[in-house]
Amino acid sequence: MNIALIGAGNVGWHLAQALQKAGHTITPIYSRSKDTREELAKLVAAQPTASLNLQSSDAEAVLIAVPDAALAAVAAALQVKPGTIVAHTSGSQPLSILDAVHGARTGVFYPLQTFSKSKPVDFTQVPLLVEAQNESTRQQLQALGQSISHTVEAVESGARKQLHLAAVFACNFTNHLLGISRQLLQEADLPLHLLQPLIQETVAKVMQHNPYHVQTGPAIRHDQNVVEEHLQMLQQHPRLQEIYRLLTQSIQATPTKP
Amino acid sequence: MNIALIGAGNVGWHLAQALQKAGHTITPIYSRSKDTREELAKLVAAQPTASLNLQSSDAEAVLIAVPDAALAAVAAALQVKPGTIVAHTSGSQPLSILDAVHGARTGVFYPLQTFSKSKPVDFTQVPLLVEAQNESTRQQLQALGQSISHTVEAVESGARKQLHLAAVFACNFTNHLLGISRQLLQEADLPLHLLQPLIQETVAKVMQHNPYHVQTGPAIRHDQNVVEEHLQMLQQHPRLQEIYRLLTQSIQATPTKP
Repeated sequence: MNIALIGAGNVGWHLAQALQKAGHTITPIYSRSKDTREELAKLVAAQPTASLNLQSSDAEAVLIAVPDAALAAVAAALQVKPGTIVAHTSGSQPLSILDAVHGARTGVFYPLQTFSKSKPVDFTQVPLLVEAQNESTRQQLQALGQSISHTVEAVESGARKQLHLAAVFACNFTNHLLGISRQLLQEADLPLHLLQPLIQETVAKVMQHNPYHVQTGPAIRHDQNVVEEHLQMLQQHPRLQEIYRLLTQSIQATPTKP
Repeated sequence: MNIALIGAGNVGWHLAQALQKAGHTITPIYSRSKDTREELAKLVAAQPTASLNLQSSDAEAVLIAVPDAALAAVAAALQVKPGTIVAHTSGSQPLSILDAVHGARTGVFYPLQTFSKSKPVDFTQVPLLVEAQNESTRQQLQALGQSISHTVEAVESGARKQLHLAAVFACNFTNHLLGISRQLLQEADLPLHLLQPLIQETVAKVMQHNPYHVQTGPAIRHDQNVVEEHLQMLQQHPRLQEIYRLLTQSIQATPTKP
């Protein structure tokens, strides 16, 4: 397929490479930043562009991978040939935000994964959640998805939004807690590798069990002495104290038995 | 070595099996609960006991794996032959809590891992943090540790306490967030497997990067519309709203650049 890509951030970066690897032609690539669009275009043999008017492009599909907050403005400015598939890659935005794109067959092509440019991603393992304005568009997006991923599912806007909310807890907030734990090790000059088996086991366990049923630690044991001592140790970090207190309360208020 | 085990909870359960597998003799096993001590004793060919008087036992070392809150009382009640090694397995309690055990050579033997009876653990991958009242005891505990784990390190009480605090964030709190994300999927009848690649990638990423430097999601993008919508979606869950708000603030207040 000939695919145009709008956005060359973390998602566009990995998506473009996966699509090219699967044999698709990426062109053009739009990004507001000249350096960014030129860098990614070079990487996947595409043309960079500074224009959102793609009416003279051969693209059969346009994938929009811009920050959620920029999506409405991009949709309003984008111009495509009638009948072109235009899909965004956002977890939280509705399909209808693309109604502004005149003449387009609209859809959603949401890769449920965390992307950083510095970390390669095996796209075959990334679930792709697809939605479209009509059945033929959905089928084409589904086929496009299957060319790069083993897991492609049709999910409508409401369910996708809930999935995205769950992903914020499972990934973004979890990552922040792992950052805090690393900071606490660094402040005490402790070797970072000591926590790695624990982190890996925590995740291995939740692949097989409901996390609520395998909760461990001072909070679930209602070990108030240890909780108080930890809060004391965090007294230089009032925000971390607050997080510690709130998550301890939440663990203690959550039913643990199946 | 002949080893007595006090406590047959999550830690004792896995520790006893790892020690037996490495060729040590476990006997006796003490637990307040008759069923529990008999079940574990049967599993590792040990004698169960309801007494903390081990003066007539052949044990060269006594490992105490009881909840932190019970440790002082167990130390006060425990009786051993003079010269017996007595070590506790707690991350948060100081070595000195064992000063109450008359005539013992005291130490700490802390496995830095999360244990649930229902989930087998490869003990060779569990870091063991060792501390002792004197050098010969430390060496013996270190050798005992090396017989079951590839990673044994000498860590004194203060550093171990900090490591335990970091572990609460990295494991216990992370597990709770993963439980919340699962709950949100279940409430929307969404398939749980969709989040698994995301969870695995989140952890794979922090093995190579400082989490603060690879933070993704609406909070770090200051995408206030999405944040507000998520808070709205959580209105039936005031506690989860509070967690969402606090962690979003914390992400936004944390420096992200190397």
